[in-house]
Amino acid sequence: MNDKSKKPQKLKARLPRGFVDRSAADIRAVNEMTGKIREVYERYGFDPVETPLFEYTDALGKFLPDSDRPNEGVFSLQDDDDQWMSLRYDLTAPLARHVAENFQEIQLPYRTYRAGYVFRNEKPGPGRFRQFMQFDADTVGAAGVQADAEMCMMMADTLEALGIKRGDYVIRVNNRKVLDGVLEAIGLGGEDKAGQRLNVLRAIDKLDKFGPEGVKLLLGPGRKDESGDFTKGAGLDDDQIAKVLFFVGIKDYAESAGALAELVAGTSKGGEGVEELNMIGALVTGAGYASDRVKIDPSVVRGLEYYTGPVYEAELLFDVTNEKGEKVVFGSVGGGGRYDGLVSRFMGQPVPATGFSIGVSRLMTALKNLGKLGQDQVIAPVLITVMDGDTESMGRYQRFTQALRAEGIRAEMYQGNWKKFGNQLKYADRRDCPVAIIQGGDERAQGVVQIKDLIEGKRLAGEIEDNATWREARVAQEIVPEAELVAKVREILEAQAEDRRRAG
Amino acid sequence: MNDKSKKPQKLKARLPRGFVDRSAADIRAVNEMTGKIREVYERYGFDPVETPLFEYTDALGKFLPDSDRPNEGVFSLQDDDDQWMSLRYDLTAPLARHVAENFQEIQLPYRTYRAGYVFRNEKPGPGRFRQFMQFDADTVGAAGVQADAEMCMMMADTLEALGIKRGDYVIRVNNRKVLDGVLEAIGLGGEDKAGQRLNVLRAIDKLDKFGPEGVKLLLGPGRKDESGDFTKGAGLDDDQIAKVLFFVGIKDYAESAGALAELVAGTSKGGEGVEELNMIGALVTGAGYASDRVKIDPSVVRGLEYYTGPVYEAELLFDVTNEKGEKVVFGSVGGGGRYDGLVSRFMGQPVPATGFSIGVSRLMTALKNLGKLGQDQVIAPVLITVMDGDTESMGRYQRFTQALRAEGIRAEMYQGNWKKFGNQLKYADRRDCPVAIIQGGDERAQGVVQIKDLIEGKRLAGEIEDNATWREARVAQEIVPEAELVAKVREILEAQAEDRRRAG
Repeated sequence: MNDKSKKPQKLKARLPRGFVDRSAADIRAVNEMTGKIREVYERYGFDPVETPLFEYTDALGKFLPDSDRPNEGVFSLQDDDDQWMSLRYDLTAPLARHVAENFQEIQLPYRTYRAGYVFRNEKPGPGRFRQFMQFDADTVGAAGVQADAEMCMMMADTLEALGIKRGDYVIRVNNRKVLDGVLEAIGLGGEDKAGQRLNVLRAIDKLDKFGPEGVKLLLGPGRKDESGDFTKGAGLDDDQIAKVLFFVGIKDYAESAGALAELVAGTSKGGEGVEELNMIGALVTGAGYASDRVKIDPSVVRGLEYYTGPVYEAELLFDVTNEKGEKVVFGSVGGGGRYDGLVSRFMGQPVPATGFSIGVSRLMTALKNLGKLGQDQVIAPVLITVMDGDTESMGRYQRFTQALRAEGIRAEMYQGNWKKFGNQLKYADRRDCPVAIIQGGDERAQGVVQIKDLIEGKRLAGEIEDNATWREARVAQEIVPEAELVAKVREILEAQAEDRRRAG
Repeated sequence: MNDKSKKPQKLKARLPRGFVDRSAADIRAVNEMTGKIREVYERYGFDPVETPLFEYTDALGKFLPDSDRPNEGVFSLQDDDDQWMSLRYDLTAPLARHVAENFQEIQLPYRTYRAGYVFRNEKPGPGRFRQFMQFDADTVGAAGVQADAEMCMMMADTLEALGIKRGDYVIRVNNRKVLDGVLEAIGLGGEDKAGQRLNVLRAIDKLDKFGPEGVKLLLGPGRKDESGDFTKGAGLDDDQIAKVLFFVGIKDYAESAGALAELVAGTSKGGEGVEELNMIGALVTGAGYASDRVKIDPSVVRGLEYYTGPVYEAELLFDVTNEKGEKVVFGSVGGGGRYDGLVSRFMGQPVPATGFSIGVSRLMTALKNLGKLGQDQVIAPVLITVMDGDTESMGRYQRFTQALRAEGIRAEMYQGNWKKFGNQLKYADRRDCPVAIIQGGDERAQGVVQIKDLIEGKRLAGEIEDNATWREARVAQEIVPEAELVAKVREILEAQAEDRRRAG
């Protein structure tokens, strides 16, 4: 053993698997985006409410299994009184708990919204994180589908408020009751057929991926993919398959509503579902939301587990290039539906509810693709450099800095090792500082400061190439009396802002 | 066994112990407050950065103990690859990990800020929660105390930006090196005296609570409290006690700095600490921050574990009434200091850093006490009532609602059971809706709507008592053509806003 092996092992700095740090640009983009979403929701009469990150595991609907730790999909731990707690995996289950716990005080119908982190204890992958943000809106205590219609219109308004053009998005609406009615109509009703129903729903959900031909195979005997792998199908016969494909293939709902009503006639809830879809269609159309914004679309299959009526999905229709270089439709950025059972689990009485959830980082990616975020870019601070480290000089640099800040100008005094002046200018460069202030001994003796326009400096040095023939070059460096420091800096910052405006 | 016992037990809706839900008013107040804090920090050149809620347990500085679960004070769980992860208990340790992990890409000195939830696995109590929000600012890679001076000025500016008057707050500054120097000077240096040093620090920390006489006892033989319980003291002799009390009793630092320097002369770092305090004093005074804003105060004892140089504390000086009905000084709302060791744990090289943390809910409580939050109160939505439930009527109500929203007016259509009209007005009342819109069959036939000014209605009914003699009563109820709905509602809302302004 030599000396080296005795050295204590250095602690390794590493993010936990599946978690990420968020950069300044991302944080600002999310703040800008959520601010706009909030504005729309507030206008619709929704108020914020937030729950903590922990819930008792049973309240989340994940019941304690036989095994020691109920960690399937959620992060759970046992409190010191032996109760299991879990980090929330969505914002809906905690809201249901909140409403049930405060049922006497809450005025129904209760419109609320919230943004927050949720957690999934799953294998992380590219773009799949174990902590991510959702932005939800819910109406609790509203039994009628007018509440669902409102959710759909609110989503359409939200996407437009974020700068997504009409035609570049659509809110698709379906109804679990109609879907269940179709399944019942083809003989798949009843408890004993639950497994086969699930296979049918899974097949429908592949419509985007495999097209009607692929889904047809998955509904019937099964499908072999390109690699030769075989997926067993739901085993429906041709007549059953035809009815399912008719349903999910409906393009113009108004045209097909009659045939659909006929198909589900006699089922327990199918007719009710068709009526609900008709009502939603009439409400949104009446309020001026044509089918290019909110569209009845029976191919939407969502939330197999807990949705009980209308389901809806916000889809972005423009193309993006995926990691394989292929053009693909951007797709879903959020969705929701009616969950009449979730609050009543606690209550022993029915509490209808409907809600919508936006995947924040996915929507942010979409907006970045469209160039709709980060418009009001934050300008880096003015840098006050340090030429001398004695208390008197430092005090003077600090005073310049505070004078700029007091006038609302972003500014900082260099806080690193001031003795290497080159490092200070390198810092200003890497940080994109717009202006640098310099005062050495000579300047101090004369009561002046040197002010460098770093942006103009780069342009004159040819580091920035732009079509800047439309104006004469500014002076990139000036010496002004200390008393004129703030005014001169403001003048330069305004000239730079004007340049940015002109450059578009 | 009777039938009842077979009924499945209803799930109980309950918050986990020590956690709370946040109301709309609280969320809005915190957003308003953090928005203002952010503005100041940005002006000082700080940029946001955020880390996830989990860190590997070792990175938090809580090392895996012998026991199975390292749950002392933190919430921990074992990942499926057997690594222990913990929810962060502050925002500093995760920042240190972030800087160390991205050291090559980060441009030092690195000024950043972040707000976020932290978690303590402790016994909850009144006002003591297991999840709460902190708002931190840190400068990493800045060795000089000018960075500490900047933190103190930034805190002073922040408190003033939040509406706290000069004189109602003070930022107190001390230095661990001076404190250690004093301890060394009275013979308490060295590893073997660590326990006694800790007792002395704990005694000093009680200065606010017990006064100099109480601290004198705690530094000496010990102190008996009112209930007769005895706390063993640090066992210092009279000369030692006198020196400690001189140090923590310094009121005017400038006057005492010489004597202090003498006291710590010859200790390893005491002199350096006095020089640092002098420098901070000079810098803040030079930048116009007199001792009513930033004050050198040797009684500040903070962060016994990891602070290595200057420490600072933001204290609010106004009185509040505590739960016992006594007037007490509000006290600390945040603090921080220099932690040169925290990043370097990962690095094998020194990485100086200093930072400040605000306790968000405590500061919010203070601001509420001062009436400095919730100034721009959110007005409840206009309620569009529902008189008929057929699709055509619903569509019409929905259209009114959307027309108001499209003009930026907060509005909602009643989503509960519309058949009980009384419930709709009760809802409007409980929700504080400013205006209600009503259209029954007769009005519909005439193409008009009834608009109720609910605030004026309450005033005329004598439910609101105010000194409203300065204006004539408005009409509390009007009938207007559908086309004039939006304009009329806007007119009423503006009149109500004018009333609120006049009422102050």
